[in-house]
Amino acid sequence: MCPPALPSTLGQLPTPALLLDLDILERNVERMAQRARQLGVALRPHVKTHKSPQIGRLQQGNGAQGITVSTLEEAAAFADHGFDDLTWAVPVILGRLEEAQRLAERVRLRLVIDSAVALEALEASGFPFHVWLEVDCGDHRCGVDPEGREAAALAAALAASPRLCFDGLLTHSGQAYRATSPVGLPGIAEQERRVMTQLADRLRRAGVEVPAVSIGSTPAMSAAASLEGVDEARPGNYVFYDFTQVELGSCEVGDCALTVLSSVISCQPGARYAVVDAGALALSKDPGRGGGKPTLGEVFEDYRGARLSAGVRLTGLSQEHGLLSAPLPVGTRLRILPNHSCLTAACFDGYWVLRGTQVVDRWPILRHKS
Amino acid sequence: MCPPALPSTLGQLPTPALLLDLDILERNVERMAQRARQLGVALRPHVKTHKSPQIGRLQQGNGAQGITVSTLEEAAAFADHGFDDLTWAVPVILGRLEEAQRLAERVRLRLVIDSAVALEALEASGFPFHVWLEVDCGDHRCGVDPEGREAAALAAALAASPRLCFDGLLTHSGQAYRATSPVGLPGIAEQERRVMTQLADRLRRAGVEVPAVSIGSTPAMSAAASLEGVDEARPGNYVFYDFTQVELGSCEVGDCALTVLSSVISCQPGARYAVVDAGALALSKDPGRGGGKPTLGEVFEDYRGARLSAGVRLTGLSQEHGLLSAPLPVGTRLRILPNHSCLTAACFDGYWVLRGTQVVDRWPILRHKS
Repeated sequence: MCPPALPSTLGQLPTPALLLDLDILERNVERMAQRARQLGVALRPHVKTHKSPQIGRLQQGNGAQGITVSTLEEAAAFADHGFDDLTWAVPVILGRLEEAQRLAERVRLRLVIDSAVALEALEASGFPFHVWLEVDCGDHRCGVDPEGREAAALAAALAASPRLCFDGLLTHSGQAYRATSPVGLPGIAEQERRVMTQLADRLRRAGVEVPAVSIGSTPAMSAAASLEGVDEARPGNYVFYDFTQVELGSCEVGDCALTVLSSVISCQPGARYAVVDAGALALSKDPGRGGGKPTLGEVFEDYRGARLSAGVRLTGLSQEHGLLSAPLPVGTRLRILPNHSCLTAACFDGYWVLRGTQVVDRWPILRHKS
Repeated sequence: MCPPALPSTLGQLPTPALLLDLDILERNVERMAQRARQLGVALRPHVKTHKSPQIGRLQQGNGAQGITVSTLEEAAAFADHGFDDLTWAVPVILGRLEEAQRLAERVRLRLVIDSAVALEALEASGFPFHVWLEVDCGDHRCGVDPEGREAAALAAALAASPRLCFDGLLTHSGQAYRATSPVGLPGIAEQERRVMTQLADRLRRAGVEVPAVSIGSTPAMSAAASLEGVDEARPGNYVFYDFTQVELGSCEVGDCALTVLSSVISCQPGARYAVVDAGALALSKDPGRGGGKPTLGEVFEDYRGARLSAGVRLTGLSQEHGLLSAPLPVGTRLRILPNHSCLTAACFDGYWVLRGTQVVDRWPILRHKS
C-alpha cells in the first residue's frame, strides 16, 4: 500500500487524502488518559474509530488497559498485531460463535450479550467465554432495561454459570450524541454512572457478584464530573474528534486531528458553488447534527491557520463529488473537517501522518470486512 | 481474503455478508446491453458501482465497449486486470496529472474537463491525453452550461488542440435521481438527449468537430424513448439496482441483485424494535429518497419469497448497528435491500456470489483508496 518514498509535505499529497495531525493525536491520547486517571477508571479505548495498530499502541503506551472493538474482523486484525485483551462491544452474533471461540483460544476476547437467547447459545458452546451484560442506560439501542426483570435474571445466570466468566455490566451512553446543548452532557454522563452503579448495587445486595462496571462515550467522558463506582471507560472518537464533537461541545476545532485534503475540480463562471473530489466515499454520508438541510463537514482553506473559509460548508455529497456552498477556483486545495471521523477513516486505506505540514509517516487502516 | 473453502449455502455464511444474486446480475447485464443496442448506442458501463473485474468482464462479454471509472485508483486497478479503455468520468484532479499520464501510457485513459484552468493544465502537460468536455444537462453539479460561451470556447479549443485528442461531449443526468415520480423520467432522459445533441449540432455548424456524444444514468436509460444523436451511454447502477431505483421506477424489487445478509443481535422483551449487525459500515448512511425520517433500506426475511416482512424498515444506523422498525427474535437472519448499492458494495472486501441459495463464488471488490 505504501509508496516507495513518502511525499515530504502536505503540498505534495494527491487528493483526496486522509490527513492525521500527529501533534493533536498525541495530545488527545494523553489528555483522555489523564482524565481517566483523574476520574479513577481504567481506559479501554474503542479502536473502531481508527482501526490502526499504531494508534492502539500509542494508547497502550499511555496506560490503556485492553481495547474495545466493534467487529470480529477488527478483533482478529488487532489480535494479529499483538493486542491480547479485547472487548467486542456489540451483542454477539450467534452465527459466529465458532469464529469467536477460535479467536478466544489465542487472546482474551470478551463478548457482550443482552438476551437469554444469546446466554443459552454461549452456555451451549461449552467454551469458557468472558461475557459482559449490556445495559441500556438511556440510548435505547441495545442492552437490558436496568429496571426490568431480565437484567437481574441474566446477571444472576451469568454470575452463577459454571463455565462462563462474568465480566460485569457494560453500557454505552450513545444518547449523548443527541444532546441538544453542551449543558446537557454532564447530566447524561451522570445518568449513565447512576443507572449502572445503582444496578450493580442492587445486584450485589441480592448476592450477585458483579466484577466490574464499564461505561463510555467520548462526549460523556468529556463532561463527567464523577465516575464513582465505575471501573472502566471505553471512549473511542476522542483520538480524532470531528465536527459533530465540536458541535456537541466535547472539544474545540483545534482538537480535531483528522481532516480530508481535497481539491476543487469544477466551478463554473457565475456559479455560486464549487465541486471537490471528496465525496461520500471519502467523508461518508453522515449528516451530522444539523437539522433540515444537512451540512456535511466544515471547510478550511488553511486548517488551524488564518485562512478559514468562514461559512463555506459541504452541502451535498455523491459517490466521488462534494458540493461546496461557495465558488472557489479549480485547483484550490482544502481541508475538510468531517462530521464523523470514524466513518471517514473507514473510507481510506491509510493515514498520511503529519507534523504540521510535514509528512512523517503512513499508517494503514485495518478496514477489512468480509 | 478468500477462505480456503467456500461455504456451500446462504445459511452457512457469517453475517453481515454482501450477497450477489448471479442470475439477476446476468439478466440485468443482458437487458441493459440489449437496451443499448435497441437505442443504437454503445455501452460504456460505470464500474464504480461494483469495482469488480469479474462483473466488468461479464459486461464486456455482453458487448460493452470500454468502461467508466470514478477515481484514478479504480482506473489503475481495472487496468491491472486487463481493461484497456477507460473513461475517468469526473473532472480531472489537477494535482494528479502525472499519475494520469503514467496510466495513460499503458492504457487508453480518457479524461474529463469542464474548465479553462483544466484545459490549460492538460495542454501544459505536453501529453496527448484523450479528453471529453463535460456538459451540465440539468444536474447542476459539474459541466459547462450548454447555453454559455464557455461550452463553445472550450469545445473549439479542444478540437483545435495540436496535442490533445478531443473525444466529444459528455454528461450525466444525475437529476434523474431527484425525479418526483417515474412519470418524470422519460422527460429527463429526453432533456439530456436534446441538450447534448443540440449543443453538438450547434458546435458542428460552427465548424467544430465533435467526435461523439456520451450520456448516461441508470434511471434515464430505463426511461429513454430515443437516443438519436447520442453515441454512447454510461449507466452503472443497473447491474445491481437498489431500493432507490425501485422507488424511482427504474426496476422492480425482483431486479435487485445485491442484498446484505444480517442477523438480529438484540431485541428486548416488550420492545417495538430490534437491532441487526448491519450498520453504516455495511449499508452506508445513504438516506435514499425518503423525505423526513430516513428509511434506510427495505427488509426481507426471505428475499423474493413469500416471507417478506412487510413494513419492516431500517430506521437508524450507527457504525455497526442497524435499527429495525419491528421486534424480531435474536438470531433471526434477514436480507436487507440497501438504498444505494454502489456505496454498500464499497463497504465490503468481496461478494458472496449466489445461485439461489447456493454459494458459487467469491469475487473481490477493488475498493482501494489511498
